[in-house]
Amino acid sequence: MRVFGIDCGTEFTGYGVVEVDHSGREVKLRHLCAGAVRLNKKDKTPVRLLQVYGELTGLMRLWQPEVVAIEEVFFSANAKSALKLGQVRGVAMLAAAGCGLPVAEYAPLTIKSAVVGYGLAAKEQVGFMVARLLELEKAPKPADAADALAIAICHIHHAQTAERMRR
Amino acid sequence: MRVFGIDCGTEFTGYGVVEVDHSGREVKLRHLCAGAVRLNKKDKTPVRLLQVYGELTGLMRLWQPEVVAIEEVFFSANAKSALKLGQVRGVAMLAAAGCGLPVAEYAPLTIKSAVVGYGLAAKEQVGFMVARLLELEKAPKPADAADALAIAICHIHHAQTAERMRR
Repeated sequence: MRVFGIDCGTEFTGYGVVEVDHSGREVKLRHLCAGAVRLNKKDKTPVRLLQVYGELTGLMRLWQPEVVAIEEVFFSANAKSALKLGQVRGVAMLAAAGCGLPVAEYAPLTIKSAVVGYGLAAKEQVGFMVARLLELEKAPKPADAADALAIAICHIHHAQTAERMRR
Repeated sequence: MRVFGIDCGTEFTGYGVVEVDHSGREVKLRHLCAGAVRLNKKDKTPVRLLQVYGELTGLMRLWQPEVVAIEEVFFSANAKSALKLGQVRGVAMLAAAGCGLPVAEYAPLTIKSAVVGYGLAAKEQVGFMVARLLELEKAPKPADAADALAIAICHIHHAQTAERMRR
């Protein structure tokens, strides 16, 4: 299974592709790519949204994932920033739908629990554990890329659990 | 000038196309089309966003406007609904950007002032005045379609004022 994780943000939108490797004795997670769409604050909103859509669509076509995993958003912040984040999130989900890919959503607590084993883990712990699980030398940068990989790993864990329960 | 107005919503997203007709003695506004993208609550979010994007893109290609006008959103409502509205709004702006069209944003007060002459006008008053300005027999339905036409009319008024000031 190949999963495309997305961590939406109004400045940086992280992405990461993770694959499950069943070839060896142990089931292994393999890191394929990670990075972030960096938006220029000077650009107008439609231009920024077009950039997010274009880059994500291009990456999905390149990496051909089977599913897109994205963070559910719960807000303590104000409605204005929620609207702005929603705009980016809508475009990210549209990119997935446009590529014919299903979208799975996970709550932040679920993602951190899946990767660190602790729902209230700090950002650095997430980066550290992502690097360990994917056998990377260090945590991917920016942090949004590490978060996107964490979301992809979370989906893989959930899919494996669901598969085991099905059997 | 031909303007494509959009009134975003999580259930109904209204649209309306208005043209300025300079052919006669008086400058006249002409209504070309109005309606709403109706979303099914049972559909998943990516499917709904794909529908909004597809229908708006199709309409923009069909009517070939020069500009897209959209409502600015100020929120008293909670962050959760702001996020959901933002997702639709992001996709609407992306449709405009994808068609190479500039996007103009207007505050609700500005739109109502332009159409009714009173910033705190009720929804029915907006529908009534839109019908009058566009010489329609009655207010377009649903109300979201009338609101979208109001946004388009607002842009035309502002563009005319800017043009007069330039001269």
